[in-house]
Amino acid sequence: MLSDKIVKAELISIGDELLIGQVVNTNQAFIAEKLNSIGIVVTRMTTVGDEESEILDSFIKAFSNADIITVTGGLGPTHDDVTRSVVCKFLDRKLVLNEKIYAHIKSLLRRRGIFQSKINEDQALVPEGIEIIFNNYGTAPGYWIEHNSKTMIVMPGVPHEMKAMIDDVVIPRLRITLSGKVIKHKTIKTSGIPESLLAEKLKNLTERIAEYEGLTLAFLPSPFGVRLRISVNSDTQEKVELQIRTFTSEILKRASEYIYGYDDDTIEQVIGRILTEKKLTLAVAESCTGGLVTDRITNVPGSSNYFERGVVAYSNESKMNILGVSKDLIEKFGAVSKEVAEAMAEGVRKISGTDIGISTTGIAGPSGGSPNKPVGLVWIGYSDANITIAVNVNFPAPRRIVKERGSQAALNLLWNKIK
Amino acid sequence: MLSDKIVKAELISIGDELLIGQVVNTNQAFIAEKLNSIGIVVTRMTTVGDEESEILDSFIKAFSNADIITVTGGLGPTHDDVTRSVVCKFLDRKLVLNEKIYAHIKSLLRRRGIFQSKINEDQALVPEGIEIIFNNYGTAPGYWIEHNSKTMIVMPGVPHEMKAMIDDVVIPRLRITLSGKVIKHKTIKTSGIPESLLAEKLKNLTERIAEYEGLTLAFLPSPFGVRLRISVNSDTQEKVELQIRTFTSEILKRASEYIYGYDDDTIEQVIGRILTEKKLTLAVAESCTGGLVTDRITNVPGSSNYFERGVVAYSNESKMNILGVSKDLIEKFGAVSKEVAEAMAEGVRKISGTDIGISTTGIAGPSGGSPNKPVGLVWIGYSDANITIAVNVNFPAPRRIVKERGSQAALNLLWNKIK
Repeated sequence: MLSDKIVKAELISIGDELLIGQVVNTNQAFIAEKLNSIGIVVTRMTTVGDEESEILDSFIKAFSNADIITVTGGLGPTHDDVTRSVVCKFLDRKLVLNEKIYAHIKSLLRRRGIFQSKINEDQALVPEGIEIIFNNYGTAPGYWIEHNSKTMIVMPGVPHEMKAMIDDVVIPRLRITLSGKVIKHKTIKTSGIPESLLAEKLKNLTERIAEYEGLTLAFLPSPFGVRLRISVNSDTQEKVELQIRTFTSEILKRASEYIYGYDDDTIEQVIGRILTEKKLTLAVAESCTGGLVTDRITNVPGSSNYFERGVVAYSNESKMNILGVSKDLIEKFGAVSKEVAEAMAEGVRKISGTDIGISTTGIAGPSGGSPNKPVGLVWIGYSDANITIAVNVNFPAPRRIVKERGSQAALNLLWNKIK
Repeated sequence: MLSDKIVKAELISIGDELLIGQVVNTNQAFIAEKLNSIGIVVTRMTTVGDEESEILDSFIKAFSNADIITVTGGLGPTHDDVTRSVVCKFLDRKLVLNEKIYAHIKSLLRRRGIFQSKINEDQALVPEGIEIIFNNYGTAPGYWIEHNSKTMIVMPGVPHEMKAMIDDVVIPRLRITLSGKVIKHKTIKTSGIPESLLAEKLKNLTERIAEYEGLTLAFLPSPFGVRLRISVNSDTQEKVELQIRTFTSEILKRASEYIYGYDDDTIEQVIGRILTEKKLTLAVAESCTGGLVTDRITNVPGSSNYFERGVVAYSNESKMNILGVSKDLIEKFGAVSKEVAEAMAEGVRKISGTDIGISTTGIAGPSGGSPNKPVGLVWIGYSDANITIAVNVNFPAPRRIVKERGSQAALNLLWNKIK
């Protein structure tokens, strides 16, 4: 690969399940982002089915267009996995048993108590003379292939197996061979402000965006908050860094109170860092979000240091029994109310002996709504030793989206109180 | 569209965030599956950036190849949303204010308390003379366009807004105009068996798959179980139905004990149906899965009828205080053990007064593992009035995957006990 021109990559995904839409292709986005982060430009993403001729054809086309070709999928143990045999045809190689891979497969499957099948031995066969990329999480190895001055990287389609290969082997190795044109992206993560209001706050900045050479800004809304993506394309690292730094500070001047982090930060990670730093502990009482708030909090490694417990109090009985919410309060104001949200947050804090309690109670739908309390209304409570409050969010959406937005609103309130 | 030939569709996704991999394209899979289900074949999926010329070019190419073109993304209120103006150029139309859309935007944003911006009025402008697809969940309408005997359907990129349009308008309307070649897929959902063992059980069937004309079978593994997808391509509905029925019954003969449902069924829905039918109630005590089991259970509409409460007992104190697990037991066997899993399941059942309790306790990682209890070991408990048991699953994986597989193992055990 030459370092003075743009290095192009083409991503090939293999699997009928993608073409008919049964499986969402998360692999292409993951790989594209990683390649992009080291300055490799993805020019095309192709998806083909489990047909030898189609796969072979996609290999030939990709080799004529791109410098780097990634291939995912079709390396598993069943009859519809044909990628390996196409690689053999394309390179004109035969299959050989790799002893290291075989030993790994045996140890992995014995741990799971399922080693017994001939089919597993077959997975230790790889095309002769290629370089193996070790699979920490599964039985199918990846391949690193240098061919006609181009690089082809073949990986399993199972996302977490592929991701480990990309992070541990592919990116570190490609980074060494590259330099030159610099592309950089920075994502600013916001919470608690809708896209249109954020756009207004930034209007006098976005109107003169042309002053920032090679810079673009995108608004990316989601149930977990609006992200602002800054992209800069230039010829030196210094110019790129300066543009990003300057533009970020302009955004911060206009909207800092909504910005919780950058790039891969999640609000639950940021909350975890603050709680750890301030030595605060947390308990959660959920109703309509049904466990999603605690699921997100416990996705953070080390969350057991500050997260004490969660209660999913779906029934009124559990709100009363575990959380100590009074029957009167529920009867007077209803389970979905400011008063009950506050009582839940305070209750879970007290029974857990934590510094902070948060709560959710709302109408996730699709049924159970009324004109006064429509589907999508969620009350969020917060309680610490000094204050107990509740706020609401209110938007029509399908059940899962109500849960997602409700969980985001709860984490947003918590973040605002502790930051 | 002619009914005696294959109807082809091309899907165009718009957004820089897709090309650089920041956002996973879930829309293409969703649309492909829906089109496929009514016999429309997706021949290509294209992704382009937020550039007018590239979008226009993709429209022109798609119109030369396909009968139906779907376009998603770039309809939002910010400066990087350019799809609408490209549609105007492509059709040579100007923008006009749509009063109905404007009234909808006002009512939606007033409910959220954020109507104030000029930017929202702009969203009520649509290309003259096209047909509007109403957006129940957001401000940007979709467009239904008939042009040069082809159909172009333009929708917002926000997934739940697009999905509602596809389900409520696009598929019902396309279905009416179609007939002819029949393609059908059926997915068999399994749980509790790894891909390689399932492949062995079905081996004497898959070896003679050629006897089933036009039929293919794919194995699709995931942390939520292996799915088997049967696809049949034929000229009459009767032939297709017969092939699928016959082949499904052959699979059932060999692996029925692992099959919990079909197509869009989730194991949590199936569990919900059984619990409702048998009038049983459920409570959940989670440790390492951190709320994911209850999150999945409460994704099912109507789950409040059988799900009483969930406890995420992350600390040993919460296991003792809320669930009544004895301190001796935790000290003797450790929090991750058969004994504690059983005590948690029994404890949550008793304090909740439900018929059934289930539990999880394990090492989600990345730290906290030991040779005897490695990261990925999860104990699953089940308790009813007659029996209390625990089983374990054990596989190395990143934190999120351990949570997903642990939640699946818990739901699998529950399903096996109540089915």
